[in-house]
Amino acid sequence: MDSIHMPEIIKENSKPGGRVLAESESRSSFDNINSPPTNDDTCGTTKDFSCIYSKDLLPAPSGEVTTKDFFEELLKEGLEGFSLELPDQPENLEQLLVDCRDTLKYGVKTGHPRFFNQLSSGLDVIGLAGEWLTSTANTNMFTYEVSPVFILIEEVLLKKMQQIVGWSEEVGDGIFCPGGTISNLYSVLLARYHFFPEVKTQGMTDLPRLTLFTSAHSHYSVKKSAAVLGIGSENVVVVKCDDRGKMIPTELEHSIITAKTKGSVPIYVNATAGTTVYGAFDPLNAIADICERHGLWLHVDASWGGGLLLSKRHRMKLQGIERAWSVTWNPHKMMGAPLQCSAILVKKRGILQECNQLCAEYLFQTDKHYDTAYDTGDKTIQCGRHVDVFKLWLMWKAKGLEGFGSQVNKCLENAEYLFTKIQQRPDFELVFKSKPEHSNVCFWYIPPSLRNMSPGPDRNRRLHEVAPKIKAQMMEQGMTMIGYQPLGDKVNFFRCVLSNTATQTGDIDYLLDEIARLGQYIYIRID
Amino acid sequence: MDSIHMPEIIKENSKPGGRVLAESESRSSFDNINSPPTNDDTCGTTKDFSCIYSKDLLPAPSGEVTTKDFFEELLKEGLEGFSLELPDQPENLEQLLVDCRDTLKYGVKTGHPRFFNQLSSGLDVIGLAGEWLTSTANTNMFTYEVSPVFILIEEVLLKKMQQIVGWSEEVGDGIFCPGGTISNLYSVLLARYHFFPEVKTQGMTDLPRLTLFTSAHSHYSVKKSAAVLGIGSENVVVVKCDDRGKMIPTELEHSIITAKTKGSVPIYVNATAGTTVYGAFDPLNAIADICERHGLWLHVDASWGGGLLLSKRHRMKLQGIERAWSVTWNPHKMMGAPLQCSAILVKKRGILQECNQLCAEYLFQTDKHYDTAYDTGDKTIQCGRHVDVFKLWLMWKAKGLEGFGSQVNKCLENAEYLFTKIQQRPDFELVFKSKPEHSNVCFWYIPPSLRNMSPGPDRNRRLHEVAPKIKAQMMEQGMTMIGYQPLGDKVNFFRCVLSNTATQTGDIDYLLDEIARLGQYIYIRID
Repeated sequence: MDSIHMPEIIKENSKPGGRVLAESESRSSFDNINSPPTNDDTCGTTKDFSCIYSKDLLPAPSGEVTTKDFFEELLKEGLEGFSLELPDQPENLEQLLVDCRDTLKYGVKTGHPRFFNQLSSGLDVIGLAGEWLTSTANTNMFTYEVSPVFILIEEVLLKKMQQIVGWSEEVGDGIFCPGGTISNLYSVLLARYHFFPEVKTQGMTDLPRLTLFTSAHSHYSVKKSAAVLGIGSENVVVVKCDDRGKMIPTELEHSIITAKTKGSVPIYVNATAGTTVYGAFDPLNAIADICERHGLWLHVDASWGGGLLLSKRHRMKLQGIERAWSVTWNPHKMMGAPLQCSAILVKKRGILQECNQLCAEYLFQTDKHYDTAYDTGDKTIQCGRHVDVFKLWLMWKAKGLEGFGSQVNKCLENAEYLFTKIQQRPDFELVFKSKPEHSNVCFWYIPPSLRNMSPGPDRNRRLHEVAPKIKAQMMEQGMTMIGYQPLGDKVNFFRCVLSNTATQTGDIDYLLDEIARLGQYIYIRID
Repeated sequence: MDSIHMPEIIKENSKPGGRVLAESESRSSFDNINSPPTNDDTCGTTKDFSCIYSKDLLPAPSGEVTTKDFFEELLKEGLEGFSLELPDQPENLEQLLVDCRDTLKYGVKTGHPRFFNQLSSGLDVIGLAGEWLTSTANTNMFTYEVSPVFILIEEVLLKKMQQIVGWSEEVGDGIFCPGGTISNLYSVLLARYHFFPEVKTQGMTDLPRLTLFTSAHSHYSVKKSAAVLGIGSENVVVVKCDDRGKMIPTELEHSIITAKTKGSVPIYVNATAGTTVYGAFDPLNAIADICERHGLWLHVDASWGGGLLLSKRHRMKLQGIERAWSVTWNPHKMMGAPLQCSAILVKKRGILQECNQLCAEYLFQTDKHYDTAYDTGDKTIQCGRHVDVFKLWLMWKAKGLEGFGSQVNKCLENAEYLFTKIQQRPDFELVFKSKPEHSNVCFWYIPPSLRNMSPGPDRNRRLHEVAPKIKAQMMEQGMTMIGYQPLGDKVNFFRCVLSNTATQTGDIDYLLDEIARLGQYIYIRID
């Protein structure tokens, strides 16, 4: 039983032991991997699960339909007392408490120290308190009159973050918005407006073909922004990276020149500070030089890497970020703020307002009795906007800059520990040999049957199947959780990311041992 | 002392009495409206507030700078023990509690029964519990593997909402997203993709000039979407409304034909079910007929009016909504869900995925061990997405469909009560004479000096100043809060909106009496 996961609440999350994922309600009927094969033709076809065993589910051949049916049944009706259906009549509070308990029970403990699946993890108690207060205040960021304190808090946070990036107070602007992809979308929107302000009223019909540049290892949000904004995802040029996942500056410049000769108009380069999979930092100064030479908007996507600016030990990895025209930085990742908390910072004061304002009179009256520059709602592409700043502000009060720095250092020490462990083990292989720059560590588990095979397509084809199979078993066991993916010419590999300060070296040992335990007997077809 | 507002926590919000806004910390020095005028030239120029009185602030002539300085001082340093600055070193928990208390104290009680300022108001305790659980779970909506329960809850909610709109289960699709403006942006994005799917990869450069249509009373989000998406805000044709704020269908058809003759390509009509200011419902069936004739995408912005679908008594006001191709519906407005909670519903299954997917391999692996149709993240323009569904689901469990229906009925009864009261009072005047269709009631307060003036530009110029002056005083007094705006040829008027079921008729009486009390002595310049 796979994806039904059982978290307990907060205090459980910080315990070193305990399960990350759920134990099946009806576990006894599924975990007997030695059950006889099912030969009854009527069985399983009409959602009768009494004669189906876990081995009949994926990755079993032709297990797709059964697995899908099983999940749907399980989640929609099969859970005793947990009905997702929406009633016409009210239910009593006792039932609501049961519903809440079940929701947590069948969810995933993202705060568990052995949850390594996402860049956002952990559960900061002060941050949580901030979220609870925010929900209680239940207000909206669009005008100062309904959010006086939160709007000032946002301004204080943005100024501090701009200062940390290295900008002077006069030039900086910014806004918190719903996630790093929307923050990156703002950067493209602003770049377009900077070069072609008429686009706001006239649209892109009379514009030349615009081109954006981003690296092969960058996040897909640049392409998504291009698709949404009407620039077109194929007008994003993907620049080659080196083995370590860093954009190659000469390749960038070559791409820019090529685009120009083809008649399109380069406007924007996205450099990544902390790539999603490898945790690589693009060479910002070299890229900034090229952007200056060609007059392009330089955006730095530091969604994941921004947190390193808070560590004296690691902030030099982002050297050159102060030369960016805009920066995305997600405190809900490396700073451990609860989801969601993402900022777009812009080194051109006033452009957010100019680009986005429509001056709706019902909301942004100019004859208000206060300074309406504090009505920040018209700087955004939203109208109402969730209060994402209070939790971060409260965490900053509680930890100080130094506290955040220590958190970052600890996560990166954990990554080095994992890196060293993998170097020492014969059953694991690193995807790239150099020391991690961020907390991402990428590796393969090599099952016994592949250990003596020579490198090449045959081995790769088999290795590609290993991570998904281990992950499927890992989800069934529910003791830890880690992601995998292919990337470029690398077949499926695990990516461990460390952003939860509750994680100890013992948890990292556990992860490797658990992968090895689950992986040693997996069946890889030799065709 | 105006915009520093003092809410208590939840239980205060449901009390019939109490202040909506803050009492000044240093009130005694400001509320003496009989203080002598300030003639000292050095006074007030260097942020010395010891010799400035509240009468020196706006709306006093040349009070702008003083007011701005005063607010900044007050909020950033002037509040005893409340520093917004971000420390390098940690603060102790005692201080954090003080910070939390101050944040609530200087905020606005949006849940107070006399808060009439925004379409979203009230504080539903079950909804709040849902938000608290959501923060505790601290997960992300992009994949089923980290949000199994929340993703299924979203699906259940979307299906229910589609069914209530009147669509069959097979055709419907949708997603919850950060606010009504983003939901409306999706509708334009999908319409563009429907007619020109190549725009996703190629952009708009080779496309003809596209035209969108929306009414003069509609929300500004259609123009904002056009600006963001590269269509251009001036390619949104604003269609005339009748006196009641409803789009005039013959004007729409005329505008469509005119646009075509000018060589642009109409693709999309936004009809509003519940306009922001008047609460008007556009005639959906007549508009749907026109859209069918011209082959246009019909979107219905029911952000505010969608809640009425849950009331047997009022749902006929949205007749024809089932003919829409997409619908925006914000449960955080008329259904009372905590902010934020907004859905875009789409009557074309699969188009969200087709339009937005980029198939990032690190997140949306196709070799997962479950049905990846539940990985809804690639249907969105975001990557990570906040969990906005659980609170609504829990509220639905707690109230049932019938409970929501009763809430809506109660709010609309309150609006009728207010409407009738205003009809009876000589010191108030309705902006339009007909009975409210939604819970919006729009009116002027007529101060004694204007009561005997004949209608015309002179009276209008003076009347325009009344609402802002009353609101400024209202914010200083802090006992109630209501919005105002001009609209078309109507000078500044109050808009009362009722969406909090805690509001009683006594609160409505209070509102009118308070406006009259504050308004009777305001000074309107006769020039």
